[in-house]
Amino acid sequence: MLKTTLLHPGILGALGRSGHGSQVLIADGNYPFTTGSPSAAEKVFLNLSPGKVSVTDVLAALVESIPIEAATVMVPPDGAQQQILAELRALLPAGLELTSLKRHEFYDLARSPNTALVVATGEQRRFANLLLTIGVVRAVGDRSSTGAASAQSASSFRG
Amino acid sequence: MLKTTLLHPGILGALGRSGHGSQVLIADGNYPFTTGSPSAAEKVFLNLSPGKVSVTDVLAALVESIPIEAATVMVPPDGAQQQILAELRALLPAGLELTSLKRHEFYDLARSPNTALVVATGEQRRFANLLLTIGVVRAVGDRSSTGAASAQSASSFRG
Amino acid sequence: MLKTTLLHPGILGALGRSGHGSQVLIADGNYPFTTGSPSAAEKVFLNLSPGKVSVTDVLAALVESIPIEAATVMVPPDGAQQQILAELRALLPAGLELTSLKRHEFYDLARSPNTALVVATGEQRRFANLLLTIGVVRAVGDRSSTGAASAQSASSFRG
Amino acid sequence: MLKTTLLHPGILGALGRSGHGSQVLIADGNYPFTTGSPSAAEKVFLNLSPGKVSVTDVLAALVESIPIEAATVMVPPDGAQQQILAELRALLPAGLELTSLKRHEFYDLARSPNTALVVATGEQRRFANLLLTIGVVRAVGDRSSTGAASAQSASSFRG
Amino acid sequence: MLKTTLLHPGILGALGRSGHGSQVLIADGNYPFTTGSPSAAEKVFLNLSPGKVSVTDVLAALVESIPIEAATVMVPPDGAQQQILAELRALLPAGLELTSLKRHEFYDLARSPNTALVVATGEQRRFANLLLTIGVVRAVGDRSSTGAASAQSASSFRG
Amino acid sequence: MLKTTLLHPGILGALGRSGHGSQVLIADGNYPFTTGSPSAAEKVFLNLSPGKVSVTDVLAALVESIPIEAATVMVPPDGAQQQILAELRALLPAGLELTSLKRHEFYDLARSPNTALVVATGEQRRFANLLLTIGVVRAVGDRSSTGAASAQSASSFRG
Amino acid sequence: MLKTTLLHPGILGALGRSGHGSQVLIADGNYPFTTGSPSAAEKVFLNLSPGKVSVTDVLAALVESIPIEAATVMVPPDGAQQQILAELRALLPAGLELTSLKRHEFYDLARSPNTALVVATGEQRRFANLLLTIGVVRAVGDRSSTGAASAQSASSFRG
Amino acid sequence: MLKTTLLHPGILGALGRSGHGSQVLIADGNYPFTTGSPSAAEKVFLNLSPGKVSVTDVLAALVESIPIEAATVMVPPDGAQQQILAELRALLPAGLELTSLKRHEFYDLARSPNTALVVATGEQRRFANLLLTIGVVRAVGDRSSTGAASAQSASSFRG
Amino acid sequence: MLKTTLLHPGILGALGRSGHGSQVLIADGNYPFTTGSPSAAEKVFLNLSPGKVSVTDVLAALVESIPIEAATVMVPPDGAQQQILAELRALLPAGLELTSLKRHEFYDLARSPNTALVVATGEQRRFANLLLTIGVVRAVGDRSSTGAASAQSASSFRG
Amino acid sequence: MLKTTLLHPGILGALGRSGHGSQVLIADGNYPFTTGSPSAAEKVFLNLSPGKVSVTDVLAALVESIPIEAATVMVPPDGAQQQILAELRALLPAGLELTSLKRHEFYDLARSPNTALVVATGEQRRFANLLLTIGVVRAVGDRSSTGAASAQSASSFRG
Repeated sequence: MLKTTLLHPGILGALGRSGHGSQVLIADGNYPFTTGSPSAAEKVFLNLSPGKVSVTDVLAALVESIPIEAATVMVPPDGAQQQILAELRALLPAGLELTSLKRHEFYDLARSPNTALVVATGEQRRFANLLLTIGVVRAVGDRSSTGAASAQSASSFRG
Repeated sequence: MLKTTLLHPGILGALGRSGHGSQVLIADGNYPFTTGSPSAAEKVFLNLSPGKVSVTDVLAALVESIPIEAATVMVPPDGAQQQILAELRALLPAGLELTSLKRHEFYDLARSPNTALVVATGEQRRFANLLLTIGVVRAVGDRSSTGAASAQSASSFRG
Repeated sequence: MLKTTLLHPGILGALGRSGHGSQVLIADGNYPFTTGSPSAAEKVFLNLSPGKVSVTDVLAALVESIPIEAATVMVPPDGAQQQILAELRALLPAGLELTSLKRHEFYDLARSPNTALVVATGEQRRFANLLLTIGVVRAVGDRSSTGAASAQSASSFRG
Repeated sequence: MLKTTLLHPGILGALGRSGHGSQVLIADGNYPFTTGSPSAAEKVFLNLSPGKVSVTDVLAALVESIPIEAATVMVPPDGAQQQILAELRALLPAGLELTSLKRHEFYDLARSPNTALVVATGEQRRFANLLLTIGVVRAVGDRSSTGAASAQSASSFRG
Repeated sequence: MLKTTLLHPGILGALGRSGHGSQVLIADGNYPFTTGSPSAAEKVFLNLSPGKVSVTDVLAALVESIPIEAATVMVPPDGAQQQILAELRALLPAGLELTSLKRHEFYDLARSPNTALVVATGEQRRFANLLLTIGVVRAVGDRSSTGAASAQSASSFRG
Repeated sequence: MLKTTLLHPGILGALGRSGHGSQVLIADGNYPFTTGSPSAAEKVFLNLSPGKVSVTDVLAALVESIPIEAATVMVPPDGAQQQILAELRALLPAGLELTSLKRHEFYDLARSPNTALVVATGEQRRFANLLLTIGVVRAVGDRSSTGAASAQSASSFRG
Repeated sequence: MLKTTLLHPGILGALGRSGHGSQVLIADGNYPFTTGSPSAAEKVFLNLSPGKVSVTDVLAALVESIPIEAATVMVPPDGAQQQILAELRALLPAGLELTSLKRHEFYDLARSPNTALVVATGEQRRFANLLLTIGVVRAVGDRSSTGAASAQSASSFRG
Repeated sequence: MLKTTLLHPGILGALGRSGHGSQVLIADGNYPFTTGSPSAAEKVFLNLSPGKVSVTDVLAALVESIPIEAATVMVPPDGAQQQILAELRALLPAGLELTSLKRHEFYDLARSPNTALVVATGEQRRFANLLLTIGVVRAVGDRSSTGAASAQSASSFRG
Repeated sequence: MLKTTLLHPGILGALGRSGHGSQVLIADGNYPFTTGSPSAAEKVFLNLSPGKVSVTDVLAALVESIPIEAATVMVPPDGAQQQILAELRALLPAGLELTSLKRHEFYDLARSPNTALVVATGEQRRFANLLLTIGVVRAVGDRSSTGAASAQSASSFRG
Repeated sequence: MLKTTLLHPGILGALGRSGHGSQVLIADGNYPFTTGSPSAAEKVFLNLSPGKVSVTDVLAALVESIPIEAATVMVPPDGAQQQILAELRALLPAGLELTSLKRHEFYDLARSPNTALVVATGEQRRFANLLLTIGVVRAVGDRSSTGAASAQSASSFRG
């Protein structure tokens, strides 16, 4: 057993093959995991049963392990706020803006060849899908500028 | 042996990897199973012998296991009603409308990348193909609106 | 998304290929998942992070889906009771006896060719591994005798 | 769609790669399909749902397609007659003797490297497994003697 | 050994996965088997030696097993009649019209995604390629109309 | 198309990976092709239909292409001569002795790890299996002694 | 060991799956073997060491085994004659014209889906790549016309 | 890029599939990586060039990520101390005893089915192979006894 | 262990399948290794831990083994000079010009089908990716002109 | 194209995965390449045509790239000296003793799990097989003793 927060061999492997700009989809239980993502993306199935595991379980395990440059959520058709939103904000890096996309625009982005990993959950809340874009890990003392990366995506190395 | 109504490892696996908007084709015995569907779709062959298993056998096994948002049938060239139609209606959720498509339009829809699963049967009746679109499972008490989903596609969790 | 209690495509697939006498290992986070089981067994990794998912999460999802004829646990070297034991008993069918084996005897049984499925968890409690033996599903009204199967392993069909 | 009685691509393929002395297991719904057979055997899953398809459905589809030299059934522990027995006899070639083996002896035979094909069914009747040994197809006019083959296993070519 | 006219596991498997509108190419010994057909098509190599097996050997084995809706041949550049033509006509269903295409038009049709099976022969006669389109098998008593299917493509079930 | 007598890609490939002491099984239509040979052996299926191709068709195509050091046939239980024997002798190198083995001894030899290639035929004659052992190709002028090889197994290079 | 001039299992296999119009690339040691050819083409690596094997070694082994309808070489940017040219002409069928293409036009042709086989050599001479197009093998006595094939591409069968 | 000390997708994946008692071989540049380990073990090649990476590079990356219960080194035939020994001791957990085995005994242990991962290095120092046995990760507050595990193998969770 | 400077089996294999015009990407630790390169490219993961191995480690191992015709680096958005630049220049062949591309133009070039190999490093310096284009190896005494190749890309054979 | 003496991707890859004690078989044209070696060994086919390539071609390419600790040849049944012997001695490191084994003892050694690589040649000379055992590469200045390795197997690093 690894001594890290993140233990899953498939997730660790996919993240170790990814980098700046690669996307990670944490999908709720109703997401079309295979038909709604590129075939080249690694699929990890954690949808054990309704509610287990949740999207927030996965986000909590990931958030310490990778820098996050951007995050996108799927907006309900009536424009109402997603039930899961406050929990996502609490877990994501402070100050990171969430982009909201309508259902089919979200699918289009999730199906882009940049998606490297799809984590399927049993999340029961509706519109709880979260698409993360990986940022940059900086060595301590690195001050180089990054055009696209906002301050919160450039994490110092955690050693 | 599982204690559920649906026992087939290939069908269960494909459905567990699918979700809202994924399509399931239950194909009659004359359907071109491989050349008439996307190569990425899971193919399950239940075409043991003429009449075994039938399209209705498969639908009966599936209908309790997944929410169904839409259903499409192939219409005979003379516009006559398909022999299997009444049986399909009796098995499908009450109130679900069936869309009818001509042979080549039906093929086009079945070949879309949304098709996740093709179940080949030995059904002898003509024009007995059925293309299902998976809907949404809602947790008990969930009242969120869904633009595309009709009332009958949103099933409460069966536990 | 399936409407059943058990959603995982890999677990559902492996159970649909198993039967009377096949073994299912629900392994705690410290178990040697690959070197402690036969290579032919299906491996499902649900070890997201420490404590997620737990062995009891998996048992709760499985217990309604398969008949259980026997259950074996790994006993600590000092003979103390496993911390997880009461929770396991509460979830398992009433009256089912748990067999206790020492660490290496447990490994030997888990490595037998009868093991069809290994579910890796992030369970942090020690000695929390559980090895289930699948029993028999009986059709309603079936009264045939079964030598090896105790009463609680013969479940009537749940339809 | 083929014009023959037997339509299944996997069964047809496996039979076309088999011959005299190869074994075919038609397994009831409780059989341990993968752990109770050799890994090299072709596995065909027709266990759609409880009772569909039945062992007799499969036997009816096979019996016209291959010569059968021997047949073995699994005997209940109390020595009672299997519920399915009369139906099996009615379908098998007249005069073919059925060998009865106890559960674990049956498993041993089914796991022999001679087993080329396992057909998994949803058969609900208990002790309904059937293990067939393929015989010899003779050309019309062939009178050569066959040591092991009884009269009913030597079928003339059906053209 | 199967008791049917068609014994080949690869051909039987490919036909069992095909249906109405799928194409079968029986290629002469000079045909570019792999570069002249889609990669997804099943390739069966029966090109043992010059003349063995012939295109007519394969057609004779297939013609009883599948309904044939259409047949296409490759026409020599000088418009002369193919040496094999009379034999093909004698084997094909009475009344079925043969379409003639020039070399590169024939290649284009053979490379369409509808081609499910390529059977490579050692046929020495020139321009002896034959591209079949599978028709429909009707159950006895079925009178439904079929727009595209001519009379000879609708074969009654041969049981 | 190759200009050689032997055209089959699978047979040519397997022979090109074989050598002195490797065995080639030309199996009649009733032979258990997969369960009666090692899994590592290349399997080539030429069993198109009853009688096509025959064991002698295959032998005729092979005999010019490889040196043959030994040949073994399966003897009928009544000790009668195999119907195919004279034809085999006529095709094999003059003076090569044929070893006769009973059915199960023949199977044991065919299942040895020395078997590199199994060619399945549709041969209808009984007891028509032929197991060849590959000999040595000598360069012109090579006079080195070979312990195991008889005169007829040492062929001069055919250029 | 085969008794033919061409021994290589990979080359023999690829040629046995090719035919009229398929292309064979014999590449010099500096050719980009994988990025300069279609992924579906069989790759055979004979680039043991500088100069071994040479392009002419491969051509000498191939020229007796397949009919050659066309041949293309890569021309140096200064229009100078390739060092290898005279040797290629001496080995190729008398009268066959060589087409010369510039580097990137040659790449485009080599990357066409008609390329079935790439043989990588250790050839040190520059601009020594040779792209062959396979012609037609005619049975003795065949007089049919062939539009595209020149006289030298129609070889009589070599038995 | 992950934010952890260990970045390699193959090592992370193999460790996430391992557990208590699984072995990890960090092999020096002269070790027979494939023939000296079980085929089922994951092989990770980090042998870029002589000296890069070193065995100590790999140990430094691993030591924070997994609990180590035991460590074994290969002893030179003259019984001299390995040049790398002091560096290994400095990196390994304080108090962990190193077992020394002769070359062929070391090979035997490394080839055991418990070896889950082989990391090949370019380490130039002789007899620098290191075989680690993974221990147990304990949750904070866990006081259960472990027979085989010494104090230093039971690490508290690092979070 | 090989006696050469470059030891890695995956890098050696990929280079042995490449040639003039093939591209090799040495990627820093933040590069999106899989989503930022073609799926057909060989991926070699040397990203053991932050800083190990570095891009310069890989370049030093490669530079003696292949001719380099061109080199491209990724330029920071503020146009500042990359921290690694001087080290790259010192290792690359004297006189070779480095082309600078902006982030997304660099990605486009790295994703071209000419990229044969991606070496993932743990390089921590930002904008340290290096894309090499392989040149031509000339035999001693070869004086042929090469249009695209500059002087430094034409290396004499190193024996 | 690599600038090294050894260019072959398959040989380089297999050697990069091998080490001290791994065996390399350079097989003459009559050797049973697949049935006379372990299935796990990498097979490289360089048997283009009779005489090309020769065993000495391969040895010349290998001898500079790996340390050789031992060499074994196959002895003719009459005890005569192999025709190739003098050439082998001239290429092998000075002072290395050649062990001679009879045909079947040689096969037994070649089939040992230590054989990592089989290079198939078109060598026409009889009894020209050579089995090499890889030795140890020592860093400059390394003076550690090696029990099994003779002086000539310990090569200093060639840089």
